[in-house]
Amino acid sequence: MSSVRCHIAISLDGYAAGPNQSMEDPLGEGGERLHTWMFEPTGDADVRARERVLEGLGAFVMGRNMFGPPGSGDWDESWRGWWGEDPPYHAPVFVLTNYPREPLEMDGGTTFHFVTDGIESALEQARAAAGDQDVAIAGGASTVQQYLAAGLLDEMHLHIAPVILGGGERLLENVGDLRLAPVEATGTPAATHIIYRVVR
Amino acid sequence: MSSVRCHIAISLDGYAAGPNQSMEDPLGEGGERLHTWMFEPTGDADVRARERVLEGLGAFVMGRNMFGPPGSGDWDESWRGWWGEDPPYHAPVFVLTNYPREPLEMDGGTTFHFVTDGIESALEQARAAAGDQDVAIAGGASTVQQYLAAGLLDEMHLHIAPVILGGGERLLENVGDLRLAPVEATGTPAATHIIYRVVR
Repeated sequence: MSSVRCHIAISLDGYAAGPNQSMEDPLGEGGERLHTWMFEPTGDADVRARERVLEGLGAFVMGRNMFGPPGSGDWDESWRGWWGEDPPYHAPVFVLTNYPREPLEMDGGTTFHFVTDGIESALEQARAAAGDQDVAIAGGASTVQQYLAAGLLDEMHLHIAPVILGGGERLLENVGDLRLAPVEATGTPAATHIIYRVVR
Repeated sequence: MSSVRCHIAISLDGYAAGPNQSMEDPLGEGGERLHTWMFEPTGDADVRARERVLEGLGAFVMGRNMFGPPGSGDWDESWRGWWGEDPPYHAPVFVLTNYPREPLEMDGGTTFHFVTDGIESALEQARAAAGDQDVAIAGGASTVQQYLAAGLLDEMHLHIAPVILGGGERLLENVGDLRLAPVEATGTPAATHIIYRVVR
């Protein structure tokens, strides 16, 4: 059976985004430093970790604040995501929101579907869309937290950047009695990559 | 020149000790789960990490709460540490405290020296005692934090246990703009071991 995984970068002090996220600074102050391994890989382990981020995936789930700028309320229909007209997903993406919106078809095979009836429903739709392929919980931190707490994630790929952010959005809180088994650890000067299997 | 290092285990959510540390539970609730890799190693990486904890060290520095039970005030002179008459250090150990006490000589070459004039002084004395060998900042978390914040640590060996404690004493806060460079990452099912060099 296909699995549900997430790939997420955190600082050494546990933050998946820096403080003061905004339209200009969607990852928060210093947040882009979490992703150096991805944009300027320093070794094979970074390259391999990056390949895996999109490998074998048939659908994605993301939180509203990953799709759009911080804030809530009715949709500004002119907002089409952070990624331009050809987002990197090339697959259906289910966006968690409280506000309905028509599906948004982009170039390259990415369609954003807006799901208003909760994380289980979004995952069910993503599984159906993915077929034999895996589903990724793409982020942000609070969305990953919700799936972890609900026991719906099978595998977490954690990329620990050697960076202290000192504040921001923590990944691993409110996740209940989560049990994880490390299955692989590799590293470069830019990050340590650990794959955890969630133990049920 | 000899270097100053620390070896410290943390949970995946960043705690070096669990909540409610006490005489009966010196590592706090669940805190012993951080050290499974050490007491029940599951692979070569655990064994190697454990060997390094005491390797090449000529002196140690520790906080009062690592030497004795939580609490402060004048010494109960009957307290001789957690480790029995032959502590595992086999070298001078400098204990940070506000309360003077005569040196305490134990079996096997361990002598506890009580230092009341601050972390720099303790490190200076430890360096002098260690000669060509390294000095370890043995813990606990707040002592390691102070040395990190003061820029006095050269190397941090972090052992990340696949455990969520949900509360307790965090390691990596109040450490200022700490810059770290990972130099090695290895792992087993029990822990991921990362060696960081502190960048000055």
